Amino acid sequence: MITLTLVGIGTGNAKHLTLQAIEALNQSDLILIPRKGPGKDDLAELRLVICNQVLQPDGPVIHEFVMPERDPAIANYETRVQAWHSQTALVWSHGISQHLGNRGRVAFLVWGDPSLYDSTLRIADRLASTMATQVEMIPGITSIQTLTAGHAISLNELAEPFIVTTGRRLRENGWPEAVSTVVVMLDKGGAFTCIDPAGVDIWWSAYAGMPQEIKIAGPLQSVSEQIVQTRAVARERHGWIMDIYLMRRRSGTALA
Amino acid sequence: MITLTLVGIGTGNAKHLTLQAIEALNQSDLILIPRKGPGKDDLAELRLVICNQVLQPDGPVIHEFVMPERDPAIANYETRVQAWHSQTALVWSHGISQHLGNRGRVAFLVWGDPSLYDSTLRIADRLASTMATQVEMIPGITSIQTLTAGHAISLNELAEPFIVTTGRRLRENGWPEAVSTVVVMLDKGGAFTCIDPAGVDIWWSAYAGMPQEIKIAGPLQSVSEQIVQTRAVARERHGWIMDIYLMRRRSGTALA
Repeated sequence: MITLTLVGIGTGNAKHLTLQAIEALNQSDLILIPRKGPGKDDLAELRLVICNQVLQPDGPVIHEFVMPERDPAIANYETRVQAWHSQTALVWSHGISQHLGNRGRVAFLVWGDPSLYDSTLRIADRLASTMATQVEMIPGITSIQTLTAGHAISLNELAEPFIVTTGRRLRENGWPEAVSTVVVMLDKGGAFTCIDPAGVDIWWSAYAGMPQEIKIAGPLQSVSEQIVQTRAVARERHGWIMDIYLMRRRSGTALA
Repeated sequence: MITLTLVGIGTGNAKHLTLQAIEALNQSDLILIPRKGPGKDDLAELRLVICNQVLQPDGPVIHEFVMPERDPAIANYETRVQAWHSQTALVWSHGISQHLGNRGRVAFLVWGDPSLYDSTLRIADRLASTMATQVEMIPGITSIQTLTAGHAISLNELAEPFIVTTGRRLRENGWPEAVSTVVVMLDKGGAFTCIDPAGVDIWWSAYAGMPQEIKIAGPLQSVSEQIVQTRAVARERHGWIMDIYLMRRRSGTALA
């Protein structure tokens, strides 16, 4: 039996690691580290930095593997993602067999938290269908928490709900009904330009939690263009970008 | 100038503490620990346990204070909560003046994360209006992450949004429109009994992350009554309860 532990490591700050995460990494026999190719390898590096910082001597074996890419020839989004999950599970399974055979503890460092817009759990479930695998999860600091901590704001208004959605959904569906707070993740850029900015405040962070963190906040009307430009420049400069934002409709502002 | 650092400590497991949180606690001059009265003091105890575990010798002074109670004579919910925030800020301010005067670093251990359904930030903002105070936040593991990690499930469906709401809102408004995943917090008990259970799965945790954690999951129709009964028994036994749950509408199930 393989125990596969998905360890949330927070969002780019090695100090986001919890004591529980450090313990889980040290108790593993093998750690899988994905290489994603040029531009994205800051993240692989961060995983290695974390391993160097927290692993005891004679700790787990570290196995780096090349992360498969999504096949652009598959037109349907869900089919493409599912094919990619299967292919990745196969690569994991080779790495695990090579080092452990069919028993031992495998850990995987997951950006943020393994439950939030992350494919690792879905790949782990695929793996479990090809070899006897028990999946465990260790919670990690999410980019949502890093966003709100960086701006020192509340996620929710007093006893009010909030919605977490994607850039694509915001573009397609506009402001979600019946909530005054919206958190947007996985935005390819500027989905907030598609909504009516009147009465909306935004708190935006790129590289939240990392040394290169950038924060902009203010009325959406005033800062929208600044965010779009800042994002483009930062993306060009670093070769990649991850950003997240919270938008809140000021009370008394009618829904558009 | 007072720097007030709200330190997220996770949800009842001392190992949820991040390295950043441990550092922030050790860098403070004073730590404020609330006493909430019989039944709720497990939480105060946990804060003291954490302080004992992570503070260096000659670390900060620990100041325990009695948390004011909400005034049941104030009928309006928001007015009642705001009066309680003001009163609590006053108690903090006395504690801080007594130990530090008007300069130094004060830390406050916040259950979960300071941005999520927690009043500490609002009280800190009140304090900032009476003494020169800078507020900082350190993210912590939320009960949402502890819930999903405990059940080893994803928070969102692939690229889909989710809503986080309260028991009261769910009772008042029913299943929120346009989302298939709902996380419910601050439920006084069994708000899920107010929705049509057909096609809905639930993952429920009480005392998530703590040694006495209880988990129940399944189709809402099958486990609803079991959760209500388990909750009542646990509450009776421990004198208090905190629970949280995620509900997901199975795809293909029409919204009620």
